[in-house]
Amino acid sequence: MSEKINIGIVGATGYTGVELLRLLSNHANAHISVVTSRGDAGTKLCDMFPSLRGVYPDLCFTHPDDAKLDACDLVFFATPNGIAMTQAVELLDKGVKIIDLSADFRIRDIPVWEKWYKMTHACPNTVPKAVYGLPEMNRDKIKNAQIIANPGCYPTCVTLALLPLLKQGCLKKNTPIIADCKSGVSGAGRKGAVANLLCEAGDNFKAYGAAGHRHLPEIKQNINNIAVGFADNFIFVPHLTPLIRGMHATIYVTAENGADLRKTLAEFYSGSLFVDILPQGMLPETRSVRASNFCRIAVQKTPEMENAYILFSVIDNLMKGAAGQAVQNMNLMFGLPENEGLKITPVLP
Amino acid sequence: MSEKINIGIVGATGYTGVELLRLLSNHANAHISVVTSRGDAGTKLCDMFPSLRGVYPDLCFTHPDDAKLDACDLVFFATPNGIAMTQAVELLDKGVKIIDLSADFRIRDIPVWEKWYKMTHACPNTVPKAVYGLPEMNRDKIKNAQIIANPGCYPTCVTLALLPLLKQGCLKKNTPIIADCKSGVSGAGRKGAVANLLCEAGDNFKAYGAAGHRHLPEIKQNINNIAVGFADNFIFVPHLTPLIRGMHATIYVTAENGADLRKTLAEFYSGSLFVDILPQGMLPETRSVRASNFCRIAVQKTPEMENAYILFSVIDNLMKGAAGQAVQNMNLMFGLPENEGLKITPVLP
Amino acid sequence: MSEKINIGIVGATGYTGVELLRLLSNHANAHISVVTSRGDAGTKLCDMFPSLRGVYPDLCFTHPDDAKLDACDLVFFATPNGIAMTQAVELLDKGVKIIDLSADFRIRDIPVWEKWYKMTHACPNTVPKAVYGLPEMNRDKIKNAQIIANPGCYPTCVTLALLPLLKQGCLKKNTPIIADCKSGVSGAGRKGAVANLLCEAGDNFKAYGAAGHRHLPEIKQNINNIAVGFADNFIFVPHLTPLIRGMHATIYVTAENGADLRKTLAEFYSGSLFVDILPQGMLPETRSVRASNFCRIAVQKTPEMENAYILFSVIDNLMKGAAGQAVQNMNLMFGLPENEGLKITPVLP
Amino acid sequence: MSEKINIGIVGATGYTGVELLRLLSNHANAHISVVTSRGDAGTKLCDMFPSLRGVYPDLCFTHPDDAKLDACDLVFFATPNGIAMTQAVELLDKGVKIIDLSADFRIRDIPVWEKWYKMTHACPNTVPKAVYGLPEMNRDKIKNAQIIANPGCYPTCVTLALLPLLKQGCLKKNTPIIADCKSGVSGAGRKGAVANLLCEAGDNFKAYGAAGHRHLPEIKQNINNIAVGFADNFIFVPHLTPLIRGMHATIYVTAENGADLRKTLAEFYSGSLFVDILPQGMLPETRSVRASNFCRIAVQKTPEMENAYILFSVIDNLMKGAAGQAVQNMNLMFGLPENEGLKITPVLP
Repeated sequence: MSEKINIGIVGATGYTGVELLRLLSNHANAHISVVTSRGDAGTKLCDMFPSLRGVYPDLCFTHPDDAKLDACDLVFFATPNGIAMTQAVELLDKGVKIIDLSADFRIRDIPVWEKWYKMTHACPNTVPKAVYGLPEMNRDKIKNAQIIANPGCYPTCVTLALLPLLKQGCLKKNTPIIADCKSGVSGAGRKGAVANLLCEAGDNFKAYGAAGHRHLPEIKQNINNIAVGFADNFIFVPHLTPLIRGMHATIYVTAENGADLRKTLAEFYSGSLFVDILPQGMLPETRSVRASNFCRIAVQKTPEMENAYILFSVIDNLMKGAAGQAVQNMNLMFGLPENEGLKITPVLP
Repeated sequence: MSEKINIGIVGATGYTGVELLRLLSNHANAHISVVTSRGDAGTKLCDMFPSLRGVYPDLCFTHPDDAKLDACDLVFFATPNGIAMTQAVELLDKGVKIIDLSADFRIRDIPVWEKWYKMTHACPNTVPKAVYGLPEMNRDKIKNAQIIANPGCYPTCVTLALLPLLKQGCLKKNTPIIADCKSGVSGAGRKGAVANLLCEAGDNFKAYGAAGHRHLPEIKQNINNIAVGFADNFIFVPHLTPLIRGMHATIYVTAENGADLRKTLAEFYSGSLFVDILPQGMLPETRSVRASNFCRIAVQKTPEMENAYILFSVIDNLMKGAAGQAVQNMNLMFGLPENEGLKITPVLP
Repeated sequence: MSEKINIGIVGATGYTGVELLRLLSNHANAHISVVTSRGDAGTKLCDMFPSLRGVYPDLCFTHPDDAKLDACDLVFFATPNGIAMTQAVELLDKGVKIIDLSADFRIRDIPVWEKWYKMTHACPNTVPKAVYGLPEMNRDKIKNAQIIANPGCYPTCVTLALLPLLKQGCLKKNTPIIADCKSGVSGAGRKGAVANLLCEAGDNFKAYGAAGHRHLPEIKQNINNIAVGFADNFIFVPHLTPLIRGMHATIYVTAENGADLRKTLAEFYSGSLFVDILPQGMLPETRSVRASNFCRIAVQKTPEMENAYILFSVIDNLMKGAAGQAVQNMNLMFGLPENEGLKITPVLP
Repeated sequence: MSEKINIGIVGATGYTGVELLRLLSNHANAHISVVTSRGDAGTKLCDMFPSLRGVYPDLCFTHPDDAKLDACDLVFFATPNGIAMTQAVELLDKGVKIIDLSADFRIRDIPVWEKWYKMTHACPNTVPKAVYGLPEMNRDKIKNAQIIANPGCYPTCVTLALLPLLKQGCLKKNTPIIADCKSGVSGAGRKGAVANLLCEAGDNFKAYGAAGHRHLPEIKQNINNIAVGFADNFIFVPHLTPLIRGMHATIYVTAENGADLRKTLAEFYSGSLFVDILPQGMLPETRSVRASNFCRIAVQKTPEMENAYILFSVIDNLMKGAAGQAVQNMNLMFGLPENEGLKITPVLP
């Protein structure tokens, strides 16, 4: 079909990569022409991921040196941090569009990025051209972008809950915003690390990165872009919970007198296809979005203190937190219905 | 749209019911007009299953007494055993088609059914009209059936592996066929039983029903319908494994001299949309079919004994083992593409 | 042996009951003379809990009407709320000691108790005699008590982290104390509730009781007993995480200038057998205390705000959060070494 | 204390190593004097395994070059295959006793060992001196042994079920013995392999090693040592199930006419401290032995075929399948009560 988008995927041997492959297999306009892997060139995708048998029966990983990425309309980078920035400029120059699922283009302040990611940035001049791909915040810019910095999972989960409240002035300045976040283990990727073994991460719960996590500066940047004067009081603690997929943020905020948080959220997201504000008394659970692109958000006044509210936000970290959001961005960039390939009813149980 | 099939679902508060609702939400020809529940009449579906928020925003459970099931083109029974048989005759008389996901119409021998299910059958004369809904065995009969007995999960998983081998005479008579089967916990349904609590079934593995399980006579009937003289040597042991979804059968058989089991399976299923025969050396895992309608089967010669082979068969018990197969049957009954609503890439990880 | 304590257990068919049985089976001074159950009288304990085969080969559940509890030295109540209060007075009058693992004697303010537990208290005059059985707070009182209100799991996990800090004036008044808590599913007990099925609570994470949980007034009472002026700013949100055992509290506090939180904790617990303060940079994980009576606590300064600290506290909810603490209290009441029967190295992995 | 056994552990950074450390921490006669690790020399044990904080507060890993293993009374090898065989001879010459938890000394037929383990054996002459450490089979030999080959987990679980039946002639010759086995993931060890990640092995079930697993020749050797003429018909298929600990064997056998399998098992194990034969109608579950040294075995006649029986055997793979059995062997070698350090009530739930 002439309308198909010619797509390349760099680094599809991880969980965000295989999730992209799942989504694009049911996308009316996607044609995957090349999937690269340095270590697994020549291997059939479906030999590595038997879930793809019959879906991509013949597609093989191509060595990066042999991949004609510049013939693609769109290239997804589902790579570790530090790869996309070395290849982006050349592709952009040839008119290729890019969606980078790694962190290379997320942070505008280059020294901040270099401090947290412990690398020298390869193309700092390209960073300002990249649009932060949170459609609910930047929909119009995304439509016209050539390169998208696809957001991190924690930043997506937290920012979607705060965005309307900060924008409409519902939160009191100089009060803490505390995001106590819990992630499933797939967020740690598909590398053979002892900490992510079933016998280590299973039947176990722990905090990690409390002294500083890379998603902290990204969330602070988002907060600052929405409203000045809140980022300095933002506290973020990630935890690992024995789920495969799923992310849950519990966010403690102080409201301005008279602010109606749920109403503000509901109105802001009234036209949104993927953000769902729950009615009073219902709290979200991660499985209610499993394998789908939804984010569900609840608001609860504390029984304890005046103006103290708790926000609850859940996403599937591989979907709205990674590959699903990337496809949503692709749809916007190519003028397609925003939910093409994403009309997925969550898998429950 | 005029081509929509008008569908009723009886008893959609269990896992096969919510799975049917998930599948039909992405089916081009399905219109769900009524969903019944005695205990939850008036409740919105999406209040019970928040995964359905936005998918069926307004649909409520209807009390059976108020449900106009006879106005439907098709009624699914996702009920406990013993319900469908009390309502089927009346609906059939009015020209409604029926797919029964319970066991009421699976066993032709009424005394055998009554012994295993410990009830008197309410409509024994209707049983012969019901077609056993395993499409790979009965595709043509299903197309013309008015009532379908949707197979059990274990019988589906085991029969698909044995069907071509028995049919083509690949197995030696008077030798045991041993099916050591493992099921996820969703097979036990969504009732509050202590044995299925996370703290009982989690981090635990056990056999159950070794002295006799209701799926035993169903599998024996299937074997007998394919080839005479094998059912008496069939041994079946089910086990419970801490998965939500997934079923794995390990089947020990003795081959006739010279039989090529993998080739026989591959040829038989060469045109099948949902049965996948794995290449030599690859064994199936349950997650390779998670949330999809596939069955994947492998064959392995034992290193120990001549002509001793092991078959490995996996399905998602809620999909090919229940709701997915039901939709496949519906497609056949209504002349639709067999995989309409079932073009689902498995969810991995 | 003459030194054995004659013990009765009321209601040992739940998880705290079977945990008590596990602990007492390795306790040098325990002799279990009677275990009651209304529904399972006559059943061998080891037929209900096969883990106890060989441990209590002949012990059977006794019907409450036949149980001579007044012949015991000590009676544990491992019952639902509302049972112990109906039997305590008579036993106390006969000189029997009581450790109540339910909530009947935890709250001093009877109207508060009746509001949260939705019952009329059966013996309000006995409540003041009950000692709150948190040994690290009330060790001396416990030694002389005749009746112990064994603390709830969340209150134990949270109070142990706050106790030394509140006592030593380390926390700033009029600032929030936020306890974001996560519990394994065994805390919900061994009743057949749909919400606790493996297929509901497994592979899922959610908050619950955010509008008000019964452990809230208990924690507030503890805070008030330690230091005045903090309980009103206390916020508590419990979450359910797919563990069998384990509880994790993440507590956000604001310190007084110059306070050294870790040092204060370490000094306070320097002689404690069960509370372990982790060194700088180490965060606790629930499995590090699995099946043991330990509580491990870490302190982390936030990278974001001055004087903002995070406390991390983990326990096994069935041990230090229930049965383990009960045995610790028994040891104190009977002048035994505090860790008799509790010298358990955690089970990892 | 003068009666303490001076113990060294080589390679305690894996799961069998930390399990040994757990058991020996509650053993009246154990003194651990040295624990070696090449990669982690100088690290405190409790920094790697926080479950050991307070238990071994000061013990550090020693570099093998600095370890005075020859000053020990007993050395455990909890190492990968191929290490113990390079150090055993020297230690034996100095009078040290050895319990090897790896496979180096399990197989008498050196070429068979070398074929399955793909190495040249370093000390083939020592192999005949090693006693196979299955106490229920070799108790007297173990008491006098200087070196013990501690059995594999699958061989323990399967052999204990077959031993009395083969010994007493209960099984029919020239019929298959099929062992369909399921193991928790800790059996695969604590190395960072992708296949054992929570996101790969969790919520998943699969067979592996069906074409040949290293425990096959070990089980065949056991069968042959008990009764001639059965090993050639032995079929073994291992599966991976999402448990941390636990192993379940389902074994299909054909009995001689008139043989009473349960009675034979019960009589054989009547004096055994760790093998428990379940009554008719009860099937074992893995959690009934969690963290303990028990093996529980059930017998079930099939409802299908005459003389066809099914045996069910469960162990904790890290306990009776590894470290627990090693301590049992140590107790026998040093004339201690066989269950010293092993009087552990299983952890349930």
